[in-house]
Amino acid sequence: MPTHPLEEILHPQSIAVVGASPAGRGSGFVSPLLEQGFKGKIYPVNPRYPEILGLKAYPNLRDIPGPVDYVISAVPAAAVLNMLEDCSTKGVKAVHLFTGRFSETGRAEPAELEQAILKQARKSGVRLIGPNCMGVYYPREGISFVTDLPREPGTVGLASQTGGGSVYFIHIASLRGIRFSKVISYGNALDLNECDYLDYFSQDAETKLILMYIEGVRDGKKFFSSLRQAASTKPVVIIKGGRGKSGMRAAASHTAALAGSTKIWETMVTQAGAIVAENFEEMADLAVSFNFLPPIGGLRVAILGAGGGTSVLSADQCEEAGLDVVPLPADIREELKTKGVPVWDWVGNPIDVSILGDSGFTGIDMLQMMARNENFDLLIATVNEDAPATKEAIIPGRRKEVRSFIKVKQGTSKPFLVIVGEKSPGIKNHNNWRWRVLSEARTRLIAASIPVYPTIERAANSARKLRDYYQRRK
Amino acid sequence: MPTHPLEEILHPQSIAVVGASPAGRGSGFVSPLLEQGFKGKIYPVNPRYPEILGLKAYPNLRDIPGPVDYVISAVPAAAVLNMLEDCSTKGVKAVHLFTGRFSETGRAEPAELEQAILKQARKSGVRLIGPNCMGVYYPREGISFVTDLPREPGTVGLASQTGGGSVYFIHIASLRGIRFSKVISYGNALDLNECDYLDYFSQDAETKLILMYIEGVRDGKKFFSSLRQAASTKPVVIIKGGRGKSGMRAAASHTAALAGSTKIWETMVTQAGAIVAENFEEMADLAVSFNFLPPIGGLRVAILGAGGGTSVLSADQCEEAGLDVVPLPADIREELKTKGVPVWDWVGNPIDVSILGDSGFTGIDMLQMMARNENFDLLIATVNEDAPATKEAIIPGRRKEVRSFIKVKQGTSKPFLVIVGEKSPGIKNHNNWRWRVLSEARTRLIAASIPVYPTIERAANSARKLRDYYQRRK
Repeated sequence: MPTHPLEEILHPQSIAVVGASPAGRGSGFVSPLLEQGFKGKIYPVNPRYPEILGLKAYPNLRDIPGPVDYVISAVPAAAVLNMLEDCSTKGVKAVHLFTGRFSETGRAEPAELEQAILKQARKSGVRLIGPNCMGVYYPREGISFVTDLPREPGTVGLASQTGGGSVYFIHIASLRGIRFSKVISYGNALDLNECDYLDYFSQDAETKLILMYIEGVRDGKKFFSSLRQAASTKPVVIIKGGRGKSGMRAAASHTAALAGSTKIWETMVTQAGAIVAENFEEMADLAVSFNFLPPIGGLRVAILGAGGGTSVLSADQCEEAGLDVVPLPADIREELKTKGVPVWDWVGNPIDVSILGDSGFTGIDMLQMMARNENFDLLIATVNEDAPATKEAIIPGRRKEVRSFIKVKQGTSKPFLVIVGEKSPGIKNHNNWRWRVLSEARTRLIAASIPVYPTIERAANSARKLRDYYQRRK
Repeated sequence: MPTHPLEEILHPQSIAVVGASPAGRGSGFVSPLLEQGFKGKIYPVNPRYPEILGLKAYPNLRDIPGPVDYVISAVPAAAVLNMLEDCSTKGVKAVHLFTGRFSETGRAEPAELEQAILKQARKSGVRLIGPNCMGVYYPREGISFVTDLPREPGTVGLASQTGGGSVYFIHIASLRGIRFSKVISYGNALDLNECDYLDYFSQDAETKLILMYIEGVRDGKKFFSSLRQAASTKPVVIIKGGRGKSGMRAAASHTAALAGSTKIWETMVTQAGAIVAENFEEMADLAVSFNFLPPIGGLRVAILGAGGGTSVLSADQCEEAGLDVVPLPADIREELKTKGVPVWDWVGNPIDVSILGDSGFTGIDMLQMMARNENFDLLIATVNEDAPATKEAIIPGRRKEVRSFIKVKQGTSKPFLVIVGEKSPGIKNHNNWRWRVLSEARTRLIAASIPVYPTIERAANSARKLRDYYQRRK
């Protein structure tokens, strides 16, 4: 297979930021490169400054002494054509057009300008990312579009028509242990488009899971062919933005995308072997599932459900997500009886830990038995927030629970998902021990490669989608 | 209308905790009363201790010098009948049986003991809350079943068959600005049952919104009659635990409840004028909606959607929840044009703030126009996490945004909902400024009586359910 053109584009030796400035938005593309430790040359370009963030600034691209591989354009729309001529002169390989206000405005003139830009780029052999987008976050290469993103690389790739949404997603997914191979926010997809990014991720050895946020595709047939190919190599999860009539209107004014029928879209995505997500929160659930779990081979779930009410609702919500909350198998009940567990006939699946009480036999003991039992395909446990106990009991209790979960994980090859509730604190209780102990639990579980989910509903939905995915691949 | 028996039960002059101990679970019912500042007498009862948590302890209920109105029983099941005799002697009005291990065990003997307890209680005129439950949290009276719950009273009442779930719910709802009139965890509902609690809340002037978590009802006809009556006085939101076959099994072993068909249940609850919630998270959404919003009279929503992708997904998710994301009305577009807003023909509903850019006209300006415009029934805004900006821009930016939202709220009589994302931090980033600024936003918005929701999906679903509720009441 020939090397994909993006492979070279994404490994520049030098980056020029045209329209850079020392502060505010204009500094936004220089400071992330510095923060991420980009190893190549960084050339800020702006005739008004001799220096930007400690780097020598150049009045024009042509004034840069060495070669320039990659250009980030933060100049106004009207200045792009001239800049592209300079790029051609300098032998630039690719331009990321952060610059917007083109076809997405719905106006004729900006749309014509956009087409003129495409024509000129094609003529001079410069490839375009965008316009109207954030561009590239590639931590392994030290490239980023905003500051404060993780420097450690990972194996998740995202191609997205929303830049703000990409930043949001990197934040929420990072908190849950996801790290990225590369994220490409590609906006209006004037030149390089969804098919190029998909093809690239499909053959990219650094990417094990492909995520996409798409508002519209240029060529449905070509896209679904690329999608089928990509999905045959690794899991692909797609959010479709612009599903309803108002969303389609919004998509047109966001990236000039022409959204089509959602039902047909979903059917085709699924038939191509990819997975549909509704929003970035669900995409994060699926990303942690694929990132941390082995294949899910069946629906039969063992649930460690905290207290009684939580256990009941866990059963309901797993069942509503299509999982099979099987009763406790006879052989486990027999074993409980043999072991002298006094509530052997009462306790079930989900495990209500309050039933076990002071029997000397814990929910973890049961979960371990269920992990070993062939009647279960996957395990879900909840970090118990129900416990009507004091601080002195809760903190060590939760820590012990987390240590036990890690032992369960280490002793089984079955998929194991854990619920750690998210919270809506106010500023005065932001640091309350009750929520800090949950943050601590998350850190430890993720460090042990256990995926965490904010609710049982979301964990169960995600598990179901993975099982369906693996089922289809058989 | 005669005073409901619970009215007297919930205003005891003295509370005895039988089976109290100085530490561990046994201390659990004494310390909350001390912490909440219960004004009446507190009598720990346990022959093994002369003193418990600084209070004189009594060997037996009969040894208490003064009258005892209310007893909390933390003794084992086998000791309850004797204790009830003592209660009868002392003229106790009500006993909360924290004590469990009765019919929920699924065994004959404990179920018979439960019936004997009921018989004895009936004979001696002692009313029972429970068994197998946490009892009462009534902050106005200084009564609580755990420590660390808010001392300020509110107007939301909850009757629940799960004790742990009640504690969990009080925590998550409190964070979002909800305070409670009273919460009653009632477990197996042996004597006082779901109808009694519903009837009580229905006539209780301190309760403006009734919430219930129910696993089973004793008498369907009676219950739906009570529900119809209650729902005619104030909103009633109900979670049904034990909806599927595994949930029903779990409910039987939790509170010995016999759950019935979910579809029939949901139809009957809706026909009775009440509202169905799926889980405690949705119940919290509905509680904040009823608590903070005026009636929602229509479906037409104005959305301030942060950046482009978030705007597109906001439109999709509002539409999928059944709201009507109407296009920007012609008169508003005309006004934008007159005011010289350069993107007057481009910007729409949802408002993508990145379109407005540096036009000098903000998303808030537009939201204000939409608030005044008769084409919109409700407003939803998102605290913008999309902004690809630095700490120095984000913190003051979010603060300004929150101040503006408060101004919008103060200037309109329309329902106004705000999204502030929840987070899954790890322990090292628990205190990151990025999440702290959201906690600060929540505190300020809630203080201004603006309800906050973690996602647009949940806000939209909640708004839709409220609108349907008010529609049915017409």
